[in-house]
Amino acid sequence: MTVATDTIKLSTRGHTDIHDITAAVQSALERSRLKNGIVTVFTVGSTAGITTVEYEPGLVSDLQRMFEEIAPSNRPYKHHERWGDDNGHSHVRASLLGPSITVPFTNGRLTLGTWQQIVLIDFDTRAREREIVLQMIGD
Amino acid sequence: MTVATDTIKLSTRGHTDIHDITAAVQSALERSRLKNGIVTVFTVGSTAGITTVEYEPGLVSDLQRMFEEIAPSNRPYKHHERWGDDNGHSHVRASLLGPSITVPFTNGRLTLGTWQQIVLIDFDTRAREREIVLQMIGD
Amino acid sequence: MTVATDTIKLSTRGHTDIHDITAAVQSALERSRLKNGIVTVFTVGSTAGITTVEYEPGLVSDLQRMFEEIAPSNRPYKHHERWGDDNGHSHVRASLLGPSITVPFTNGRLTLGTWQQIVLIDFDTRAREREIVLQMIGD
Repeated sequence: MTVATDTIKLSTRGHTDIHDITAAVQSALERSRLKNGIVTVFTVGSTAGITTVEYEPGLVSDLQRMFEEIAPSNRPYKHHERWGDDNGHSHVRASLLGPSITVPFTNGRLTLGTWQQIVLIDFDTRAREREIVLQMIGD
Repeated sequence: MTVATDTIKLSTRGHTDIHDITAAVQSALERSRLKNGIVTVFTVGSTAGITTVEYEPGLVSDLQRMFEEIAPSNRPYKHHERWGDDNGHSHVRASLLGPSITVPFTNGRLTLGTWQQIVLIDFDTRAREREIVLQMIGD
Repeated sequence: MTVATDTIKLSTRGHTDIHDITAAVQSALERSRLKNGIVTVFTVGSTAGITTVEYEPGLVSDLQRMFEEIAPSNRPYKHHERWGDDNGHSHVRASLLGPSITVPFTNGRLTLGTWQQIVLIDFDTRAREREIVLQMIGD
């Protein structure tokens, strides 16, 4: 049993920008040479989250609308009063979605469905350089 | 330290159908003979999710109402324009909830509360055969 | 590779009370002497959840408002009819957020961002004594 750590670096545009990172996770898994175990996909920072979705432009748009309705961008947030920031909605959306998911792999392959991709959602209000930690445990 | 993989197969009715899978997860854990570690409970596919809840009919109904309010079923979704599907709300609900949870176990028992059950929620718009991967790591 | 189990005990006031538990998780990690791996932070019970947030009073208030809007406290829930309880909203909020997160650590440190803290959110309608299980796996 081994732990293997890898990192994905990603440039986003913010504003609930949604990126498919499945191929990058699968590549890291192959570099690790692990065959059976789990990978934790964790985004560093408090204005982005990780989940899975059928990655196609329609659903990207539908997800963006859902988050805009849950936590609208054009209203006051107490967070703004504190720092002069404008990204209160980014933080609460990220906390609701969560910073990580854990995905099993068997025979060197992630156990995803055919139409199920791993995505990073960047809720921040500006372009960001994101770091995603992949912690793989298995043998 | 060992990895043990197991699978739960489940027939659902879709439409935010909620199934208690706690006993099936506990059984798999006993088959693995692992005593201390974690189990990742992962649903394959992009229209279902996993969480915990006090599993009783009132809360099942309350959860269904919450998801209907967050992402109503009777409105247009961009996903429908793409594929002619009718399950845009199923996808966005599943992405928000997330495809997996990870639960510790000690002395061969899941560390759940008495009123805390592991559930699959199937948001799709038709009956489905679901596959849930259980990845157990421990010793 | 080793499994190390630890527990955090916490007194909350309920009503979407939000506690920063980052230091307690980091301390447990240091006691374990593990350097590289993952920690699953799991709340026992069905009316609390775990996530990350930039822990400051403004965002605490913003998060509380978001959950009040998603699942209002002052309306009927089917759960109340069953048990005479008043915490239907607590349960559905907790199920949506999820009972656990899994966080990587490298060189003995959690891979959190500078402004990213691990929090317990207690949605129940009364003060509670909470137990959080920390399951650390690594070497």
